[in-house]
Amino acid sequence: MSGKIDQRLKELGITLPDAPAPAANYIPYVISGNLVFISGQVPMVDGKIEKTGAIGDGTMTQDDAEGEARKCAINLLSQLKAATGGDLDRVTRVVKLGGFVACTADFKAQPQVINMASNMMVDVFGDIGRHARFAVGTNALPLGCLVEIEGIFEIA
Amino acid sequence: MSGKIDQRLKELGITLPDAPAPAANYIPYVISGNLVFISGQVPMVDGKIEKTGAIGDGTMTQDDAEGEARKCAINLLSQLKAATGGDLDRVTRVVKLGGFVACTADFKAQPQVINMASNMMVDVFGDIGRHARFAVGTNALPLGCLVEIEGIFEIA
Amino acid sequence: MSGKIDQRLKELGITLPDAPAPAANYIPYVISGNLVFISGQVPMVDGKIEKTGAIGDGTMTQDDAEGEARKCAINLLSQLKAATGGDLDRVTRVVKLGGFVACTADFKAQPQVINMASNMMVDVFGDIGRHARFAVGTNALPLGCLVEIEGIFEIA
Repeated sequence: MSGKIDQRLKELGITLPDAPAPAANYIPYVISGNLVFISGQVPMVDGKIEKTGAIGDGTMTQDDAEGEARKCAINLLSQLKAATGGDLDRVTRVVKLGGFVACTADFKAQPQVINMASNMMVDVFGDIGRHARFAVGTNALPLGCLVEIEGIFEIA
Repeated sequence: MSGKIDQRLKELGITLPDAPAPAANYIPYVISGNLVFISGQVPMVDGKIEKTGAIGDGTMTQDDAEGEARKCAINLLSQLKAATGGDLDRVTRVVKLGGFVACTADFKAQPQVINMASNMMVDVFGDIGRHARFAVGTNALPLGCLVEIEGIFEIA
Repeated sequence: MSGKIDQRLKELGITLPDAPAPAANYIPYVISGNLVFISGQVPMVDGKIEKTGAIGDGTMTQDDAEGEARKCAINLLSQLKAATGGDLDRVTRVVKLGGFVACTADFKAQPQVINMASNMMVDVFGDIGRHARFAVGTNALPLGCLVEIEGIFEIA
């Protein structure tokens, strides 16, 4: 299968890994009607969280956080590819992302971090990649990771 | 256009500003089927966040937080008006609000803060304004604001 | 009424209380199309929060938190029973849980806490109980409780 979106991913140099398994007893996505609800994705790469901590505690830069958000976005796309039976051309809309950023109390740039995921959706899907979103801070995320992003997508 | 809900807003003395633009690269709302998903709204007024900090840190009162929640609700209604092409009478149900309150760890009254937004939905829409909701604390929100609220609405 | 799911609850020794009223001016659930959106449930039992604090602050164990997540799950099921007019056999899918765990910044096992709720959904509903999910930390929850969980369910 080599659809339009697969081509676009190749042009962007994005390789989707196998959809990562959840860290707990639930499943990566549920389809209800034409909506796909994707579980909160953490920046797992090859089964590992590469960076832990919180933005603002002196151990992480804004760039670090943005890189982790990008990994969450790639994992969302992997799950979405699985949910569409491998055919990302079935996606008709990126509906909503919900983004959590582990940070200290004085950190204010959560939107800039989650932008890395938002940008990827538009890079990959074009106009139908534009979505509603929340981006908030939190003091702690699973496995000590920096970013967690859930998503709702519409498919044909 | 002067629908029933526009009349109700006038009676309540609520003036909706132009729908505020998002602080980042995403869009204010997405319509999927008959659901409108509205991005997390912060208490922006004329492009500015008027109060920053966290409830419980000594700089903010409960009243301050409730006032900020009210601003979020007005911004949600502005976006909803844009989503309905200006006709709020098309709204058939306020489905869900998701409310985040920036606070210190000992703060326990997040529901009372988000109530200001919930109350406004019922004031404006009557019975169909009654909605499901979550209200939680967080250590930090975008731009240092006090409250962020996302929403799901059903339209005809 | 004694449906299949009611029987399963009996086998599991789970008694559903009357659906708890919300702590604020909103309602416990909204049905839109065939989706039920249930408000964030806290571990209220007989109108009381039995444990308050945060995991990691030395006052709470992992077991405490898991027990509180279980109470949230029971309250979700109570609301769902009300939403289905008493007939849980109408549930066709547990779509999504959204879990918040009150914790200190160094706590990393939010998924294990929310697992208690995820496990209960699968225990009660079997395969259709498997759901998408997010599990995140937060510094503070309403009434000082340890866990809050919202849910989306699909019904016939």
